[in-house]
Amino acid sequence: MSRPRVSIYLGMSVDQQIARPNGSLDWLERFNDPSAGDYGYSRFFETIDTVVLGRSTFDTVLGFDQWPYEGKRVVVFSHRELNDERVEVASGALAPVLSSLAARGSEHVYLDGGQLVQQALKENVVDLLTLSMVPHLLGSGRPLFTQGLPELRLTLLGIQAYPNGMVQLRYQRADSAPGGSGEVGR
Amino acid sequence: MSRPRVSIYLGMSVDQQIARPNGSLDWLERFNDPSAGDYGYSRFFETIDTVVLGRSTFDTVLGFDQWPYEGKRVVVFSHRELNDERVEVASGALAPVLSSLAARGSEHVYLDGGQLVQQALKENVVDLLTLSMVPHLLGSGRPLFTQGLPELRLTLLGIQAYPNGMVQLRYQRADSAPGGSGEVGR
Repeated sequence: MSRPRVSIYLGMSVDQQIARPNGSLDWLERFNDPSAGDYGYSRFFETIDTVVLGRSTFDTVLGFDQWPYEGKRVVVFSHRELNDERVEVASGALAPVLSSLAARGSEHVYLDGGQLVQQALKENVVDLLTLSMVPHLLGSGRPLFTQGLPELRLTLLGIQAYPNGMVQLRYQRADSAPGGSGEVGR
Repeated sequence: MSRPRVSIYLGMSVDQQIARPNGSLDWLERFNDPSAGDYGYSRFFETIDTVVLGRSTFDTVLGFDQWPYEGKRVVVFSHRELNDERVEVASGALAPVLSSLAARGSEHVYLDGGQLVQQALKENVVDLLTLSMVPHLLGSGRPLFTQGLPELRLTLLGIQAYPNGMVQLRYQRADSAPGGSGEVGR
């Protein structure tokens, strides 16, 4: 069963929290500095054909001035119907959804949303990880990596440091996942 | 109350585990490759005058062929006496021990041992963090950073990537710790 490559692309603290306990991202805001560029996000975004979102992230995005996924297929994981013609709705396990996306020509998925990323790590379907660490120890929050995830060897693709102290680490899985959801379609 | 600068210097997985759940470091071993050098450890070691160890780390070190702290003052946190003239014994909070070390001329402490590092982060007495991340997602283990630590702004001092995929990140605290154990002696 082939599937598209799956990327996660996340900002986090040095202690790998992706949000404060209440979900706030205030500590990240001083790094949203247009003069610092977009830390390679638009270059990354050009490489993906599909966005798979958790429901809360979708709700957040609905509040933006502009739909940020123009030209991409968008799938939202939600238990309720969504009356939005820009998106498809899915639920349950990721593997069959990714398989269906592959069958429809998808090659590279950007998967976003705290809970959905957790699920993808648990299902061992994450192939590329871009971790942008800001120089801040939050101390409490929502950790990206929890206990009980599958073990995974990674290959370092590259690192970059920015003058404001942000460090971006890029990894890909080094091997097919034993017991994972099948081979990685490339 | 002044204290020496306190450094932690740790190897960890991408998900910031410093050991497997049972304490094993097998996943780190393939990075102990003499041809890769020592990742800057001996250079770091030259900058410190004192080593403060947890008891288990001390017990591990006793099994080494050679005493690795020659020429340094060594303090071991232990609830029991140790009949070893190479070390002093301490227990309880770190702050008064660090203060006493400062009074005796110590300027830079290397603090090591999983539990003791946890305690130092909780007491907010860590000034310099050298995190060497190997390209491996362990999935389960003993995390360096737990929930409920004090928040801390950091400054990135430098990063280095090695051909084997190891990435070393060096940070120092950006500000004196509000509610911490006092000013940082430099």
